[in-house]
Amino acid sequence: MIQTVIIGAGNVAQHLISAFAKSNTVEVKQVLARNPESIGDIIEKDKITTDFNQIQEADLYIIAVTDNAIEQVSNQLLFKNKLVVHTSGSASIEILNDENRKGVFYPLQTFTKGKEVNFRTIPICLEATTESDFKLLEQVALAISDKVYAIDSQQRKALHVSAVFVCNFVNHLYQIGSEICQTNNIPFEILYPLIEETANKIKTLSPQEAQTGPAKRNDSITINTHLNFLTDQTHKEIYKLLTKSIIDNGKKL
Amino acid sequence: MIQTVIIGAGNVAQHLISAFAKSNTVEVKQVLARNPESIGDIIEKDKITTDFNQIQEADLYIIAVTDNAIEQVSNQLLFKNKLVVHTSGSASIEILNDENRKGVFYPLQTFTKGKEVNFRTIPICLEATTESDFKLLEQVALAISDKVYAIDSQQRKALHVSAVFVCNFVNHLYQIGSEICQTNNIPFEILYPLIEETANKIKTLSPQEAQTGPAKRNDSITINTHLNFLTDQTHKEIYKLLTKSIIDNGKKL
Repeated sequence: MIQTVIIGAGNVAQHLISAFAKSNTVEVKQVLARNPESIGDIIEKDKITTDFNQIQEADLYIIAVTDNAIEQVSNQLLFKNKLVVHTSGSASIEILNDENRKGVFYPLQTFTKGKEVNFRTIPICLEATTESDFKLLEQVALAISDKVYAIDSQQRKALHVSAVFVCNFVNHLYQIGSEICQTNNIPFEILYPLIEETANKIKTLSPQEAQTGPAKRNDSITINTHLNFLTDQTHKEIYKLLTKSIIDNGKKL
Repeated sequence: MIQTVIIGAGNVAQHLISAFAKSNTVEVKQVLARNPESIGDIIEKDKITTDFNQIQEADLYIIAVTDNAIEQVSNQLLFKNKLVVHTSGSASIEILNDENRKGVFYPLQTFTKGKEVNFRTIPICLEATTESDFKLLEQVALAISDKVYAIDSQQRKALHVSAVFVCNFVNHLYQIGSEICQTNNIPFEILYPLIEETANKIKTLSPQEAQTGPAKRNDSITINTHLNFLTDQTHKEIYKLLTKSIIDNGKKL
């Protein structure tokens, strides 16, 4: 068994604890949590500590805390030459304290508290400074996921920006769509199949090939009808900018 | 059997012909196509005509042509007092010629040639001017789909604008994500599970509740890191505008 200590008790920490609990090769030996109640129902109480002095010996220490706390937490660790990783998509490997061996264990998914996810399909992006550390992280990652990638800090930054576009911004467009529906007494669920098909399509076609709609056709009549229809100034601006970007993209081809 | 004549041979027409072929209650009696070859393999040749004079008697005439051809096609029909519908999300019911009874039969989906869709899950939005015409359209729609809605022209316009946001614009964000990945030698497939989860999430949470990311947290450090990372000016502008919109939304709550 590979033994890990998880530092943190938030969303990512909780999902990792639950995922490792189902594995036969990785054991969560201990969790360090400021607020033990938040994880009381997913791990035995005697495995939880609030004290950095009480952290036990393990093969791997996973810091799963908010981005701006990673550096401070890694500085508080009292041991040396151990493998310590963070789970952030945007933080560099460099922010970890030099006293220990550094790494990154970044599960690329949008975790919502209480909403279960199938970890086996979640890509885990790994970075380490030595081959043996990488191999260990790989074993740990494969214990919970089928999709494991070597991604360095620069690539991870790109991936994170990319994820903001395809997840956070996409969700915001869903919200705008739902607001327009609500204002016009249309059940938003009518759009679910379209949303699903749009997301599925790009697995078989490139987004470039999958593009449809008035902007793609440069159909100025429909575009103007839509702009006249929109009353919210921000929605109008977003419509204009994305339409222009799709049209300009078409010209590049 | 309800008998229909389909006018048009493009994407929507082809998908409708294939869907009706599987139904026991609706028969495609004839297809009027300028270019019969395009549908030669999905319907018997003797059911295809190129001549408006040859259009046969039917219960329903479905005009499935591009938006700007609908009016002209409906003017070319030589019969009167028949139920004639178009399939457009953006055209009003009013553009159909007054000599016939008007209606709309709008399947809300992004159709790609050659890519099969499961029609039973595609919402069909209906509009008619009399109750009996609506009932007939409803029977026809239920023959191929489980999701049938009464949506008037004003609502359909709203739905179409909404669909541009949640489908066309979303796909464009996928494309930007894929470009950023490509530039940094990252396989875009790493993002598939995130894209899928983002699309699925809004079926159980509202988009407002599902929103995550640096803009939602108003995390200016990450936002600036991302803006510095982006080199493409249009990507930068889109990032700024959508981030501002998410932040402003948070303030409204």
